Parts: sequence; C-alpha cells; structure tokens
Amino acid sequence: MRVKPQIGVRRSPLNPLITPADVKPSFPDWEVLGAFNAGVAECGDEIVLLLRVAERPRQTDPGKVTVPVLRADASGFGESSVCIVELDRNDPDLDFSDRRVVKNRRGETIWLTTLSHLRVARSRDGERFTIDEQPSVVPAGPLETWGIEDPRITKIDDRFLVTYSAVSEKGVAVGLLSTRDFRSFTREGTILAPTNKDVVLFPEKINGKYMMVHRPVPEGIGKPEMWIAESPDLIHWGNHRFLMGISESGWDSARIGAGCVPIRTDEGWLLLYHGADSGHRYCMGAVLLDLNDPGRVIARTAEPFMSPEAEYETTGFFAGVVFACGAIVKDGRVTMYYGVSDESTASATFQLEEVFNLLK
Amino acid sequence: MRVKPQIGVRRSPLNPLITPADVKPSFPDWEVLGAFNAGVAECGDEIVLLLRVAERPRQTDPGKVTVPVLRADASGFGESSVCIVELDRNDPDLDFSDRRVVKNRRGETIWLTTLSHLRVARSRDGERFTIDEQPSVVPAGPLETWGIEDPRITKIDDRFLVTYSAVSEKGVAVGLLSTRDFRSFTREGTILAPTNKDVVLFPEKINGKYMMVHRPVPEGIGKPEMWIAESPDLIHWGNHRFLMGISESGWDSARIGAGCVPIRTDEGWLLLYHGADSGHRYCMGAVLLDLNDPGRVIARTAEPFMSPEAEYETTGFFAGVVFACGAIVKDGRVTMYYGVSDESTASATFQLEEVFNLLK
Repeated sequence: MRVKPQIGVRRSPLNPLITPADVKPSFPDWEVLGAFNAGVAECGDEIVLLLRVAERPRQTDPGKVTVPVLRADASGFGESSVCIVELDRNDPDLDFSDRRVVKNRRGETIWLTTLSHLRVARSRDGERFTIDEQPSVVPAGPLETWGIEDPRITKIDDRFLVTYSAVSEKGVAVGLLSTRDFRSFTREGTILAPTNKDVVLFPEKINGKYMMVHRPVPEGIGKPEMWIAESPDLIHWGNHRFLMGISESGWDSARIGAGCVPIRTDEGWLLLYHGADSGHRYCMGAVLLDLNDPGRVIARTAEPFMSPEAEYETTGFFAGVVFACGAIVKDGRVTMYYGVSDESTASATFQLEEVFNLLK
Repeated sequence: MRVKPQIGVRRSPLNPLITPADVKPSFPDWEVLGAFNAGVAECGDEIVLLLRVAERPRQTDPGKVTVPVLRADASGFGESSVCIVELDRNDPDLDFSDRRVVKNRRGETIWLTTLSHLRVARSRDGERFTIDEQPSVVPAGPLETWGIEDPRITKIDDRFLVTYSAVSEKGVAVGLLSTRDFRSFTREGTILAPTNKDVVLFPEKINGKYMMVHRPVPEGIGKPEMWIAESPDLIHWGNHRFLMGISESGWDSARIGAGCVPIRTDEGWLLLYHGADSGHRYCMGAVLLDLNDPGRVIARTAEPFMSPEAEYETTGFFAGVVFACGAIVKDGRVTMYYGVSDESTASATFQLEEVFNLLK
C-alpha cells in the first residue's frame, strides 16, 4: 500500500469560496454551472481571480438539451450573438454521458454543454470575493465560438499576461490577453495551434527569452504531456522541447499539465501541476525545474501533494477534480486557488518547504 | 457524374524519376523502401531535391518484423545509434495492416516501419538526378527518434529554409533547418509542437512578418485542416489563424495540407495543396490566397487538378498517393515534384494559367 504523502494542506474553512450560485449569468434566462479554474494575481492591495464562468440557457424541457454557441461572425456578446442548438436528449446518435460535452456515435465531441467566459472576482483577504456582475473577457471570433477557459495569469514587468484555452469546432488553441488593471484587456492573438492547453508563462526572461510550459494533446502518436517553449516577445513561440511525461500507472498516467505560474526558489522553478488518471481523477503534483534551463527536470513528486478529498471536491458537476490555475506565495507559504469538480473555486495553503520535502 | 477538370498535366516520361532502388541505404544490411516527398529548390544551376529516404534493416525472418528507432541519446547516425526492435509478425496484439506503421490493439501507432532521413539529389535538367551516397540530414535527439520526413524548402533572401516533420514517440512536431548550399545544414529548432506537419513558408515577408501555412492535427475537437501563422524571425511563431477546412465529402474530406511553397502571382498566392479522402487517396488541389492577407481565401479548386492515375501512382508501397512538397515555376509553367505511393519521386508540368481557370 502506498504511503500517503504527509504535507499539511490546509483547506480554507470558507471553501468553496465561490460557487456557481454566486455568479450572475450573462443573460436573464441563463444559468451558471461553473465558476472555477481561476487564474490568480495580486493587483494593488487586492487578490484578483479571473474565473472561468461556464453557463448555458436554463434547461426547461427535460426531453431537450440546449447548447449555446457563439456565432463566428458576432460582433459582441449579447443574446443575439449566441446560437442555441437544441438537441433531443433521446437521440440515439448522441452521447450525453460526459456532462461537459456532447459526443456523436464515433465518440467525437461535437458540442460543449456550456459556453465559458472569464470574470473577475476581487478580495482583500483572499477568501471573501466580490464577483463582477458582468463578464470581463468574452469569447470572440471563429476560434472561440465554444468559449474561453482556464486562464493562467503571470505578471511580467508591469503587465499581467493571461493565457487561456480558445475553444471552437476548429479545436482547442491557446490565446493570450494582457491587462494592467483587470478592467481593460488587450487581445494578443492565438499563440499556440490546436490541440494545446494548460499554458503558464514564467514570470521573467531566462537567458534573454520569455518561456512557457505548454501541454499539447498530440493525435495519433504521443500523449498529453508537458513541453516547454521560448519567445522573444510573448507573442511568437519556438524552440519547443519535451519537458516531462505521464507515468506508467497511477495518479498522473493519463495526462498532466501545468497548473500555477512557476515559483522561483533558490533550488529551481517549482511548478505545481495537475495529473489525471484514466478515471479522470485530477490531483496536484509538483516538479522542480532548473533555474537557468527550465527544460531540465531536477525532481518530481512521485505522489500528488493534494488529491480530491473534501466533500466539495469529490462531488459536483464533474466530481473528483482539484485543478489549480494559480497561487500566491508569501514568506514561503503558498495559497493555491483551485477549481473543484469543474464547478466551484476553493483555496488551500501549505508551506513550500513541505513540497520540497516530497521532491527529495 | 462529376466532370473531371481539364488541365493539361504532363507527367515526365522518365517517371518515376527516383525510386528506392536508386538510393544507397545508410547501412550495408539495410534496404530503402521510399525515396519520396522531396522538397525542391533551385541552387546555382542545379535543381536540388531533398528526398525523404525511408529505410529499415533488410527483413530476413518472415516471422519477424524489425523496426529501426534512433536512440534518443545517440550522438551521431551510425548503426550503433539505432536500436532494432524485433516484433513477432503473428503477435495478436500487433496490427501490421498499414505498411507505414505498427499499431497496438487500441489502434495506437506504436512504431513506424521505417526510419527516414533527408538526402540531396541534384540535376541539371530537372529529370535526371544524381543522388548523394550518404544522408544529408539525419534525425537527431529525442524528438526525431522515429525519423525526419517530408521537407519543404523556401528560399528567403540568401538562405534556403527547410521545414520538416520531426517524428518520435512524443509526437509529430515541425523542425526547421537552414542551408545556403545543401551541403551544410543548420538546425533552427522545433518551430511547432505536435501534432503538426505540412508546413510551407512564404518566400517573402508580408506586412513585415514571415508567414507559414501549417496543418495541425487536433485531438478530440477539430480536423486536420490548414492554418496560417506569422513570425518576426522564422524561429518563433504566433498569431495562428484558421485558413481553410476539409470538405463535407469528396477528395479532400479527410485531411488537407500545404504542398508546395506559395507561388506569387498578380492575383494572389497560389498554394498547391494535397487533400485525402477517407480511403487515403491523396490528390492535389489549389487555393488562391490574398497577396497582402494570405489568411484570406479568394478561391479554391472544387476538384483536384491532379489525381493518382499513372501506374506508378496507383500501385506501390502505399498506393494511390500523389503528394507534392515542391515545385519550380518558370514563365508561367510549373514543374511539380511529388511523391508517389509513399515510395518514389515523380514530376509533372502544367501551366499556372490552367490552374487559375479551375479556380474561377
């Protein structure tokens, strides 16, 4: 029997900090199903979360499933920008068994069940958040017709850079936004082609280049594993290298992907990442990367330092998921914000030192 | 019944110009199975082909299949750099039905049957080629353990830039080489993460940026379709945009990908591309892209201008394939070099004007 790693992860007693019920839907007759997988930043004296808000039209006919899709040519984000696809729940050609998606008979994902945008929530204490009434960043254009998801925020110089999944029928690509204040956002374009996600930018240049960890999902040959790339300007990326892979069996044997922005320590970049097994149970692990060559793995946790255990982590929309997209580090203590069960947002704190002990 | 497009494609009477028998294997006890999918360039007064040479150890035991794989840590390309994997042809867990690959029971590609490198062939008349005795560019490093494939060559200023598929168990990524003389080559790194291939660079900057057409193969959501991206330096790429998709049915309904370097014309960039149907029949079509915004499609051929018809195109290692990676254009006449049946190299000439007529 495996010994469970001993690290003192303290979940906030206020968890989940944010639930879908706390978020006002974009339109009166819509419902929010998820407020989760938030990027995190310190902005002034506030902790800012950039939530992924997943919503859909309120479902009124038990025999139907209605799916929202942005029109590719929409010029804004109003009810008229969205096309509502009505599906028959009993259609034998459709598979609704995964609550996140609609599949066809061939197992291909043909719709998502919700449309996601990004929404700012602000807090002074890091636990009690005020959530904006309106979306902060909305999907736009042909590469985001199925929504924008899972932001990660890195402060570089005086800007916050936000990577996110741009989802459409063309695939899951990676978009980049920048902001100085989380009130106005600038679109910096699509930085990685599909299929790719879980992109975190390093907070400083290394050897004169910006760097990222990304997670392609190769088709045919290869697995959903972590790669590293570099850029002169944050917009254009190259020198892709394989960083680290899934394990043969266990918690991170199906896929892995970067979670939080790499934390600079004397011993290397500490990257908190997620791993999932074939049963889609998502846990958090850590890897230490060389300070001057982050493409080199120094050490990695054999077991997760955090797994879905709390009631709100083991139940919910897509149960059994802890999925962090950001953290705040102060005096060696990490406050990690994480999505639970593709539904809500929670936080947990732990000592960096304890994660290091697991690496050794 | 569909009317076959009337364009005067003249196949060389010397076709196939190069066959595997013309190519000396890298090692004495190896055999060459393919000399195909060549990039093309004019260098001095020579036409240079950069052939994909696919080879393997000579198969001596009918009950076995031996598969060559480069060691990830090999420092060169000698027989000791290559690991020979011996497989039992009757292993019920293995599927050898596609001659290009070995699959497992789950339909996953676990090996390629050959290891490819790039080899220069030179000609004065464009039809009679002298093929180098030795490999010109060999696979190297962990991202090329299964070989390097399908080069495309674009001359930009005084350098030839070569994009190619870098294949390994980590996936199919895109590498970049540069050369001035096709004798020494410089590695410029991996420019696109897996799964991606069929990359052609435009021959000049457009609006101050280098540009490429690429072909991601998305996993889960999306199809193998053509995208466009831009770069300040040819090494780092961004602003990925969807360019054009497969058709609902017909010759290009399974996948499409760029073939030859875009040809500048007064009416736009003419891109010769391949399309395949679900039966893996590969044909060549054309698309006209806006001169100043190549992300905009002006017109596209509804039917291919060239299909596998000659005997050497409809038989062979992987029959039913015409797949061009390069062309020479002179006075409105195109000489297109193309791989046939994943085995040999052929050429065909036609008037640009005739392709334009198909677009209209």
